Amino acid sequence: MTRMPISLRLHRLLDPTGRASRSAGWVNRVLAVCIVASSIIAIVDTEQAISDLAPGFFLWSERIFGAIFLAEYVARMIAVGEDPRYRGLAGRLRYAVTPMALIDLVAVLPLFLGEIAGNTQIVRLLRLFRLLRFSRLGPFSRAATILLMTLRARLPELLLSLLVALVVLIFSATLMFLIEGDVQPAAFGSIPRAMWWAIATLTTVGYGDVYPVTALGRILAGMTALAAIGLIAAPTGILATAFAEALRRYHHERMEPVAPDAGQEGAVARPQP
Amino acid sequence: MTRMPISLRLHRLLDPTGRASRSAGWVNRVLAVCIVASSIIAIVDTEQAISDLAPGFFLWSERIFGAIFLAEYVARMIAVGEDPRYRGLAGRLRYAVTPMALIDLVAVLPLFLGEIAGNTQIVRLLRLFRLLRFSRLGPFSRAATILLMTLRARLPELLLSLLVALVVLIFSATLMFLIEGDVQPAAFGSIPRAMWWAIATLTTVGYGDVYPVTALGRILAGMTALAAIGLIAAPTGILATAFAEALRRYHHERMEPVAPDAGQEGAVARPQP
Amino acid sequence: MTRMPISLRLHRLLDPTGRASRSAGWVNRVLAVCIVASSIIAIVDTEQAISDLAPGFFLWSERIFGAIFLAEYVARMIAVGEDPRYRGLAGRLRYAVTPMALIDLVAVLPLFLGEIAGNTQIVRLLRLFRLLRFSRLGPFSRAATILLMTLRARLPELLLSLLVALVVLIFSATLMFLIEGDVQPAAFGSIPRAMWWAIATLTTVGYGDVYPVTALGRILAGMTALAAIGLIAAPTGILATAFAEALRRYHHERMEPVAPDAGQEGAVARPQP
Amino acid sequence: MTRMPISLRLHRLLDPTGRASRSAGWVNRVLAVCIVASSIIAIVDTEQAISDLAPGFFLWSERIFGAIFLAEYVARMIAVGEDPRYRGLAGRLRYAVTPMALIDLVAVLPLFLGEIAGNTQIVRLLRLFRLLRFSRLGPFSRAATILLMTLRARLPELLLSLLVALVVLIFSATLMFLIEGDVQPAAFGSIPRAMWWAIATLTTVGYGDVYPVTALGRILAGMTALAAIGLIAAPTGILATAFAEALRRYHHERMEPVAPDAGQEGAVARPQP
Repeated sequence: MTRMPISLRLHRLLDPTGRASRSAGWVNRVLAVCIVASSIIAIVDTEQAISDLAPGFFLWSERIFGAIFLAEYVARMIAVGEDPRYRGLAGRLRYAVTPMALIDLVAVLPLFLGEIAGNTQIVRLLRLFRLLRFSRLGPFSRAATILLMTLRARLPELLLSLLVALVVLIFSATLMFLIEGDVQPAAFGSIPRAMWWAIATLTTVGYGDVYPVTALGRILAGMTALAAIGLIAAPTGILATAFAEALRRYHHERMEPVAPDAGQEGAVARPQP
Repeated sequence: MTRMPISLRLHRLLDPTGRASRSAGWVNRVLAVCIVASSIIAIVDTEQAISDLAPGFFLWSERIFGAIFLAEYVARMIAVGEDPRYRGLAGRLRYAVTPMALIDLVAVLPLFLGEIAGNTQIVRLLRLFRLLRFSRLGPFSRAATILLMTLRARLPELLLSLLVALVVLIFSATLMFLIEGDVQPAAFGSIPRAMWWAIATLTTVGYGDVYPVTALGRILAGMTALAAIGLIAAPTGILATAFAEALRRYHHERMEPVAPDAGQEGAVARPQP
Repeated sequence: MTRMPISLRLHRLLDPTGRASRSAGWVNRVLAVCIVASSIIAIVDTEQAISDLAPGFFLWSERIFGAIFLAEYVARMIAVGEDPRYRGLAGRLRYAVTPMALIDLVAVLPLFLGEIAGNTQIVRLLRLFRLLRFSRLGPFSRAATILLMTLRARLPELLLSLLVALVVLIFSATLMFLIEGDVQPAAFGSIPRAMWWAIATLTTVGYGDVYPVTALGRILAGMTALAAIGLIAAPTGILATAFAEALRRYHHERMEPVAPDAGQEGAVARPQP
Repeated sequence: MTRMPISLRLHRLLDPTGRASRSAGWVNRVLAVCIVASSIIAIVDTEQAISDLAPGFFLWSERIFGAIFLAEYVARMIAVGEDPRYRGLAGRLRYAVTPMALIDLVAVLPLFLGEIAGNTQIVRLLRLFRLLRFSRLGPFSRAATILLMTLRARLPELLLSLLVALVVLIFSATLMFLIEGDVQPAAFGSIPRAMWWAIATLTTVGYGDVYPVTALGRILAGMTALAAIGLIAAPTGILATAFAEALRRYHHERMEPVAPDAGQEGAVARPQP
């Protein structure tokens, strides 16, 4: 094995598919874990009761993660020169303003901002977007492709059922405003107010902070709740069909049998005649 | 290109499929946006707190939209003469009493009523029905056809599961009335009252304004809630199957391959080496 | 057309498939409407506030429906003699103790009991079971057959997912009892009490009368709620598959194409070979 | 029929598939019923109000079930010697530390602990795990295999939709924390607190103990609730497809027609070639 320039070595190490070298998968995995850990700490840090317990832990863990992400940012800046599109200093500057590189930069900012601004948890949570970089890693890559194919193939039907849901929302809110607007003005005194009730009912969330009290209002609420089942069933049915279709297409394009993962555990998928 | 009579020009411009001429799609789009914007303003206008902030805005926006819809109404009245069914003055009068034209007329009314009656938001919301006119426009046309085919093909099964749901509703309400009618007369003192609880439970909305307090009542509520899952699962399963079927039939009738939308976005399903 | 004995005429008139004669469908329809109307009146009658408004209406409508069902019962008793299994007086007595005939008898009872016992709404609601007699009538017949085939074909899988749901229910209730039993003894002081919370959460009904207040309890509740989605998705997926299968089998057995309703309004009830 | 050693007789009697001998099915069934009964009693026993009513019943039923499970444990220890892997004393000791045997041991412990520790309901509930031993019994065996195949085949997609759900959870909780954190500090004063609201909304449980009160917060809640429908629809669609696939594969492997249960009651467990 010959000597490699450091930029090429870094390039292989940071390869997002984790296939370029043995350590690439390892490096990507560590970075993904760092992002998740850093995000969890940022979430917990917003809870005063917990952050007051161990302010040192939160301060130092953030500094360490910040340093790791800074090192990664520098490494990526060096490595990207191996990519023909981003060769040289000008190329690297072009790379620095791509969305992905800007997110990487934002991930590093809290390290410096923290000294000035104090609460940087929200900025730190933006790091979650960086997980997208690792979406091509491991078994999720195929799953993500299939799920995206599913959504894209039946997008008009999904949007149409969303549209129908919105129309049903407006009409049930309008009717409830007419029926109970005078009885419960705080809850149903205008259509936008009634829409708060209507969305909670149509999604079957049903907080229960507002609900009709008249007989007519309850009959309307019952019918709205029944309509809710249809509005939930429609996208589910569409997604089920689209998913089956996307799966078939995905395997067909790759000349694979329909269920190649059957072999995963050992026995399930016999090769077909 | 020869000179066209104005009625023919308007006819092409208002063509609901947006295919008659280049500007047709543009005109239809603007009208659809106007309907949606006018409806949103009508909804927001019912909220006293907001309408008081800028009464001038609501008054004038309504006048402008009203004028646009009036112009459209007149234009349609002229254009419809190109349609052999509605030629001449008698034909136009016949057209004026078709449901679609009446809805168009209702959409214009608030412009004049507003000066007299004050609150015309509800009438203005009827304009939403006018969106039906544009349902043949754009990518929703195919989706709407397929979704309608889906519903129609398995209507008896869907109605039957609604019927089963109603019977379960009546029986669980009756049982709850018998079990908790004396304990909580306000909530379960009659079967219609108990039905309010039963519908909230069977649709899994669960407002929580009424719920059983006795052990027996809670066992019944638990069983009702479990039944709810079946009653939600049934139409979902039916719709999923029917949708797959409708999709197959739709493409079969048009001699299209089952998944022509693969090429839609350009890149998703490129054959791979 | 020759003269028919009255029992044969009644037999044809009451034929549950409504195909024996032209008026059979009509008679069955009227009887079905009577059952539904009588049930609705019985439901509304339990509400004191309404039944007090028009006591005469409820009394007399019940007497009229009771008389109709009495006439139907007598007619069926005469007509059943045409059936070779129930010929003669002995046969008719044998018929009188079949479950269906007993339900018919119960449907008539309130007519006589009402004079003595007063509130007979619950007995009158039993009439809803009589709708089963008409389930072979019209387009619901095919739908009912297919839905029953669906349930029967995948019964073990459906029961198994119910079993899994029960085990999850017990475990989440047990854990919540251990976590919050001391904090909220009224809500989680025993496993059966915690099960009330667990069933409301696992079915996503979420009344909100009881909910955890500790951090650990809320984490458990969140995980239970996520599990709920799986427990709802499983039977839905199973039913969707089973329904598609039942549909295919139903049409295959009848040598019909899979989607005879493609011609929608006309072709549903193709005569069978 | 020749004389069999007692260990072989016990081995056949305790055969988990219930096929070794006529009484095997019977013995397994009785043991399964004992486990379920013992678990139900343990659950009810935690309710002070009930356990105080009949302390003797709970004490003695537990002693009897404990004795039965002790006898079963001893019998299994003797029978396992017939298995070539666990022959002799050393083999039996090796068997005693397998997870299944340890669970069996735990099931017996309350019999002795009860005298010392008092409340052993939780330990007794662990017996539910013993039901796994009987999962190969009867019609559930096939259903369990198919459901496991279903889950395994599409595990990456299911995990990915869980991941998407978690990301949506974090983002809606973060936004709600930013919007309503100052208005309702107890409910939304930190991201972990807001996550309690977010999980109740995204799973459509909707306890209603916390909910937004500002207009912006309610718009976010409405959008979160709409997202919830997608997050429920996705796993349902995936499971439906995977289940259909698993069913096809299961029957294909066994050279059975896809729907052998068409003959319903009789044909389910066709002997396999």
